[in-house]
Amino acid sequence: MTKRKLETCFSPALYLPDESIDSIVVIIDVLRASSAICTAFANGVNAIIPVAGVAEAKDYKSRGYLVAAERDGYVLDFADFGNSPFNFTKEKVSGKTIVYSTTNGTAIINLASSAYATVIGSFLNMGALTQWLAGQHKDVLLLCAGWKNRFNIEDTLCAGAIAEILMKSSLYKTVCDSTYASIDLWSLARPDLTGYIEKAAQRTRLKDKKLDDCINFCLTPDFTDRIPIMRNGLLVGMEILK
Amino acid sequence: MTKRKLETCFSPALYLPDESIDSIVVIIDVLRASSAICTAFANGVNAIIPVAGVAEAKDYKSRGYLVAAERDGYVLDFADFGNSPFNFTKEKVSGKTIVYSTTNGTAIINLASSAYATVIGSFLNMGALTQWLAGQHKDVLLLCAGWKNRFNIEDTLCAGAIAEILMKSSLYKTVCDSTYASIDLWSLARPDLTGYIEKAAQRTRLKDKKLDDCINFCLTPDFTDRIPIMRNGLLVGMEILK
Repeated sequence: MTKRKLETCFSPALYLPDESIDSIVVIIDVLRASSAICTAFANGVNAIIPVAGVAEAKDYKSRGYLVAAERDGYVLDFADFGNSPFNFTKEKVSGKTIVYSTTNGTAIINLASSAYATVIGSFLNMGALTQWLAGQHKDVLLLCAGWKNRFNIEDTLCAGAIAEILMKSSLYKTVCDSTYASIDLWSLARPDLTGYIEKAAQRTRLKDKKLDDCINFCLTPDFTDRIPIMRNGLLVGMEILK
Repeated sequence: MTKRKLETCFSPALYLPDESIDSIVVIIDVLRASSAICTAFANGVNAIIPVAGVAEAKDYKSRGYLVAAERDGYVLDFADFGNSPFNFTKEKVSGKTIVYSTTNGTAIINLASSAYATVIGSFLNMGALTQWLAGQHKDVLLLCAGWKNRFNIEDTLCAGAIAEILMKSSLYKTVCDSTYASIDLWSLARPDLTGYIEKAAQRTRLKDKKLDDCINFCLTPDFTDRIPIMRNGLLVGMEILK
C-alpha cells in the first residue's frame, strides 16, 4: 500500500497552493479562530460564511446575518460578537448561518480554497478529525495560521498532536522537517500543555487584552466530533459515523 | 539595564529586512554554506565574495578568482569546487580572496545586507560568536536559511543552541515563539545530535548524492574562533580576543 504524504506548514506565507491541489488541507488557528469555529458547530450552527474583509462582513450584517468579526482581538463595532469560542453558544448560533471574519483565520481559509478539501482543525476536534482523515486516502497538509505570517507555538503543538496520531496509524509517511519538529514539540509540551503555552506570544497578547479566559478551553482535546469543512464557499459541519 | 531583543526566523521568506536595520543578523545554513564559510576562515581565507548568480560567479572565474559554486548540491562545471567544507582546505584557500555561490546561502546574505551587521553562524563557531554578540549591545536576529524557503531541522537546532547560550547570559529577552521552539528542539536533540539529524530531509538529500561525509563535521561545536562578517560586500573573518 502506498502511504499518503503528511506535511506541515508553519505559516501562510510559506504555503504553496499549487502543491496541495490533490491534498486535504487542515487549517489550524488554535487561539482562537479554529477553536471558535469548532465550538460553533458543536453548538449546532448550520453553516459559517468566512469573510476576509470588514466591508463584506458589514454588508452581511445589514442583510440581517449574525456577524462575528474582530481585528487584532477586538470586536468590530457593527459585529454581534468577536472571536472567543464562548460567544458561539447554542442559544446564539444553533440552526443559524452566521458570518465570521477574523484577523487571520478567514484569509487563510480563502488561501487554501484550491485544495482537494479544506477542513478546520483544533484540539477540540482532533480525535474526530484524525479518524475522518484516515478514511480519506488523500495526502494531508497541516497549515498553521501563525500570527501575521510568523511561526507560533500553539498552532504548531496542535499540528504535532494531529501529526502524531496520523503517523501512528501507519497510513502516512513524512519527509517534512516541520512535521517532525511539531511532533517533538508536542511530546515536550503534552505533560503540561497549560504550562507550556505560557511561552506563546499569543497567550500574552490575549492576557493583556483580558481575552485569555478561553485558552484552557481551546486546549481541550476532543470536545466535539464535528469537523468543519468548506463546501461551495461555506463552512459546514461533518459528523463522523462511530 | 535594558535587555536586548533576541528573535529567530525560520525561513528567508518570513524575514522582514526593515525590522532588522538596527540588529545583528546571524545567518545559519548548517548543511552546508555556513559551515563551509566558517571552515574557510578557520583555514586562513583572506575574504569571501558572496555571489548569488551563476553568471556573476563565472565572470569572477574568468578574471582568475578561485570559485566555489554549486546548485542543489552539485558543483557547477566552471567552478573550482563545491559546497563541502572539506573543499576549503588550508592549501587551497589560505591567504586568498575567493568567490562563493550556493543555492541558498549567498542569496540570504544579500537579503540581510540592510541589517546593522550580518555575520555567519554555525555549530563550528557558536562559542566565539555568542561571546562576540554579548559584547555588541545590539538586538540579534537568528536567520535560518532553511531549504527553498521551508523550515529545516538543522538550522533550527543551531539557532536553538546559539539562543540558549544568549538567553543564559541574561543580556537578552525574547517574546519570540520561534526562539522558544528552537531552544526546546535543541534540548531534545543535544544528547544525540547525530541521531536526531537523521530526521532532517537535507541529510537524506546529501546522502542520496553521496555528499553526506561532512555532516558530522558540520555538527561539531567550536571548531573555530573566527566569525565571518560582511564588510563592504565582502565576508571577512573576525577573531575575538580571549
